[in-house]
Amino acid sequence: MDKLIKRRDLDFILYELLQVEELARYPRFQEHSRQTFSSAIATAYSIAEQKFAPVNRKCDLQEPTYDGERVHVIPEVKEALDAFASAGFISAMYAEAQGGMQLPYSITLACYAIFRAASVAIDAYATLTVGAAELIHEFGSEEQKARYLAPMLAGRYFGTMVLTEPQAGSSLADVQSTAEPRADGTYSIKGNKIFISGGDHELSENIVHLVLARIPGAPPGVKGISLFVVPKYRVKADGSLGPKNDVALAGLIHKMGFRGTTSTMLNFGENEECIGELVGKPHHGLAYMFQMMNGARIAVGLGASVLGYTGYLHALDYARERLQGRNSKDALSPPVPIIRHADVRRMLLAQKAYVEGALALCLYAGTLSDRAKHAPDETERREAALLLDLLTPVVKTWPSHYALEANSLAIQVHGGYGYTREYAVEQFYRDNRLNPIHEGTSGIQALDLLGRKAFAEKGVSLAILGKEIGATVQRARKHSDTELQSHAAQLADAWERLTETTRILGGALMQDANLALANASVYLDMFGHTVVAWIWLRQAVLAKEATPSPADEDFYRGKLAAARYFFRWELPKTGPQHTLLRSLDSSTVDMQESWF
Amino acid sequence: MDKLIKRRDLDFILYELLQVEELARYPRFQEHSRQTFSSAIATAYSIAEQKFAPVNRKCDLQEPTYDGERVHVIPEVKEALDAFASAGFISAMYAEAQGGMQLPYSITLACYAIFRAASVAIDAYATLTVGAAELIHEFGSEEQKARYLAPMLAGRYFGTMVLTEPQAGSSLADVQSTAEPRADGTYSIKGNKIFISGGDHELSENIVHLVLARIPGAPPGVKGISLFVVPKYRVKADGSLGPKNDVALAGLIHKMGFRGTTSTMLNFGENEECIGELVGKPHHGLAYMFQMMNGARIAVGLGASVLGYTGYLHALDYARERLQGRNSKDALSPPVPIIRHADVRRMLLAQKAYVEGALALCLYAGTLSDRAKHAPDETERREAALLLDLLTPVVKTWPSHYALEANSLAIQVHGGYGYTREYAVEQFYRDNRLNPIHEGTSGIQALDLLGRKAFAEKGVSLAILGKEIGATVQRARKHSDTELQSHAAQLADAWERLTETTRILGGALMQDANLALANASVYLDMFGHTVVAWIWLRQAVLAKEATPSPADEDFYRGKLAAARYFFRWELPKTGPQHTLLRSLDSSTVDMQESWF
Repeated sequence: MDKLIKRRDLDFILYELLQVEELARYPRFQEHSRQTFSSAIATAYSIAEQKFAPVNRKCDLQEPTYDGERVHVIPEVKEALDAFASAGFISAMYAEAQGGMQLPYSITLACYAIFRAASVAIDAYATLTVGAAELIHEFGSEEQKARYLAPMLAGRYFGTMVLTEPQAGSSLADVQSTAEPRADGTYSIKGNKIFISGGDHELSENIVHLVLARIPGAPPGVKGISLFVVPKYRVKADGSLGPKNDVALAGLIHKMGFRGTTSTMLNFGENEECIGELVGKPHHGLAYMFQMMNGARIAVGLGASVLGYTGYLHALDYARERLQGRNSKDALSPPVPIIRHADVRRMLLAQKAYVEGALALCLYAGTLSDRAKHAPDETERREAALLLDLLTPVVKTWPSHYALEANSLAIQVHGGYGYTREYAVEQFYRDNRLNPIHEGTSGIQALDLLGRKAFAEKGVSLAILGKEIGATVQRARKHSDTELQSHAAQLADAWERLTETTRILGGALMQDANLALANASVYLDMFGHTVVAWIWLRQAVLAKEATPSPADEDFYRGKLAAARYFFRWELPKTGPQHTLLRSLDSSTVDMQESWF
Repeated sequence: MDKLIKRRDLDFILYELLQVEELARYPRFQEHSRQTFSSAIATAYSIAEQKFAPVNRKCDLQEPTYDGERVHVIPEVKEALDAFASAGFISAMYAEAQGGMQLPYSITLACYAIFRAASVAIDAYATLTVGAAELIHEFGSEEQKARYLAPMLAGRYFGTMVLTEPQAGSSLADVQSTAEPRADGTYSIKGNKIFISGGDHELSENIVHLVLARIPGAPPGVKGISLFVVPKYRVKADGSLGPKNDVALAGLIHKMGFRGTTSTMLNFGENEECIGELVGKPHHGLAYMFQMMNGARIAVGLGASVLGYTGYLHALDYARERLQGRNSKDALSPPVPIIRHADVRRMLLAQKAYVEGALALCLYAGTLSDRAKHAPDETERREAALLLDLLTPVVKTWPSHYALEANSLAIQVHGGYGYTREYAVEQFYRDNRLNPIHEGTSGIQALDLLGRKAFAEKGVSLAILGKEIGATVQRARKHSDTELQSHAAQLADAWERLTETTRILGGALMQDANLALANASVYLDMFGHTVVAWIWLRQAVLAKEATPSPADEDFYRGKLAAARYFFRWELPKTGPQHTLLRSLDSSTVDMQESWF
């Protein structure tokens, strides 16, 4: 569909940039080919176009309501999700033996990208179910898989992730919910949770909550947290639904955007019995949850990217059709489409550079996951895993900021109309504002990158990224084109400064961790811009090397123009960031509470 | 009130930074003193606190509705506006002989800032009325003043500005509404207008629309537009209301924010007679409107600033109270207020630097207007007028971007809570997103700055600003403090680069105006950062020179810390902007429609 994600671009990213066809050489994906990938993608477009996109605004205007007994969601949401599940998208990555399509993660992400562009709020129910299912698949017992996973993959049960408590927020060390062992090996769950997306509704037969809680006597902090499956309705041995667990909806949360997704406060076991089953080993809950969380972080980055992407296509369409002003001073000449005004083109070009770069980055992360799990070569698996780990905070955060900025520019292109609820772009902007917050705020991602990932394996992760970037620089340098040469030099320089800045910060971390980490957000932003510049150089090199059909020439010129924009307008912004970081600026550390 | 605008800061800006007491030496303000100024401000705080702030969220949740006959606005809005008018704020700047308070514009703006921080949507009705009244005051006939101005100043009639047409948008040259002369010297108005704020409601006895339209035979383009007073109800000679004019509400516009202000589509004279009176001379309408528009642009900048400001104070309050996480690794230690985390302090410091800088900039513009109109010395008047003209696009745009960014940071400080409608910050963010759009988009402001203002009077305006900045640099250099010395050097350097960049762009304007203006938005942003750096250096110098009472020490330290933040984190961002601008980068000009 024209205004979701440009199909030509998605194909370019998948088949030219990321060469996903190569994945079909792995034993895991040997039944696949470009044809099967493309057919899954076509199905995603078709359902997204017919069932998701047309309902997106209605979801926003008619938020879920709670009458004290039941949560009401407009029926079109269930129709959309049923279509999603029936087409096999919840189990897309699972083995054929499990009824799945055995698709690579990268292709699955591409499909999810399309749904999310059409309606991020409807898709959220599916995304949460996929994530929760994955946790049970990885760490649950065979019995749990039979009881919960199978109906989740079929779309009959939905899932949630239940981490946050009102008093603890991002600080999971402070989770207080409890799980008392019961005689039969199950647990009595008690506690209050907040911001639980998809926490209540009647879209599915059952809701499978994956809940973090403490078993009495557990160590304090993050090392004493366990993970439990807590179904809304208990499931009997024969798979039929038993009595309701005491998971009480304390209220719906009303958000700025993402309004089609219920966001809930849930009280577990406050009045009656709320029975949960331990997943895996006691006290390992957070490690398990982080497995899901890493996926969730990529999902957030992808959602942010495609909200920006669809906003860009809406703005582009508007700019081509809207007649206003003129390029000459002759008041009698006819008005021109606003895309003819340089400042409008600037706003479109910035959006293009942000969202196409962000989407490519997220799908690249998808291929890293595929390689990490399924590449036949062990070294390749290990390197891909390290690279994915390093890049996850960037993949989560960079699109959350820049694709949101793209949504703001899309509004600006629409002028006053863009500020009204008659046009889609204002909703994208509100929806996208959640992304820098959930699944670990940008600040937390920055600490993860600078405090952990950048120095993981004594710097090996960073070195792997450096090797990849170096290869692209070398390839670009082989071209006589001065623009490409200049981009390559700029990227090589940016990378050198990044590694030097990292070294300086690494030294500082030993001396004064508080000071070294104080400006981690700047580090993450600069890191992200450097990585996306690399993604753009890769695209530019391919565009230069292509021998396009006449119909494709404009497409490649567009890629070159966006790469040029990124190198001229965006990458130089990292200059002052390096300077600031190397100075170990202590402004935020020195600032005293009473001075505000 | 604690969360609107910090009173200590407002006093600092007015009395220490801008030395508004000096205005009392002008004949126009000779009855005034710090005491009378402060008393007006205290009244504004009191009404804003009691009548505006408590209603702000309700306005947002219960948008105006239209039942096909009448527009319904929650009654608290009328109460708030009645209190505003009764306290004399509509006529605050008018001569005592006219029933006004004869206050300087700067003090009036300070009062308006307080109301706008409390509820920008309610205040909009008042702001529009003040602007419309000013137009009639400046250009209307004595009869028009008696008929319309007097009841407007008393708050009995409200005003609007009616420029935009659906097909024309920002392109006022394409206004098509017509005004046919009638035998009695009045005109029949016909046309469709859109985005008319306050265009219909029952908050006042009458609504006075100031409408742009063309008299038959007028020249094409902007030189053929005239200005008309078109009252909702015609006003009889004795001042009583006559029949309704045919100003039909074609619909309410539903916006992302600013929801408490009706935004309307109006059809003039579509069915019955719609009678208007010409204001001033035919075909001079746009020039008159721009008089009002300049004020409106400062009003927008001020509104943006204080939305950011109140958001900052909300975030600060939250950060001081919210306990979460800890600075040590001991999981058993109690959680700390999040203001103890460096990244939260970064977000608060950025907000402080943006919003206190923005507010000071807007109020400075207010003093320029006072000096331009009322300074006894002619040279001072002229220089102040030129400086105000030069800075108006900056005053409109810089706060619209950076105080909006502050609102985004305020949400981020609140985490998940900030994204919900339970907290005020999400509304501020939505409300503020209008400001880069209305009263001339940021793109239009950029063209105004680079295409007109920067070279006005052959560069004299810019030279006047340079003189002012130079004086601050000199004063800062007298201090032995290394921080201040460094700020001064940085600002002197930034100014030199700005003037050089301006020279280069000026040369390019002669060669290829399209190319030279293509990156005007970057020029405006860089210009704004340089001007706000100057505002911060002025504040830092004063903080350094102050001999504060113990109670005041923290306040001045906060000013120094925010200045330091601005010079270390923000001003360096102009470096790559200068480089880009000087390169006359043609990326946006070269980009072809078909490449997107």
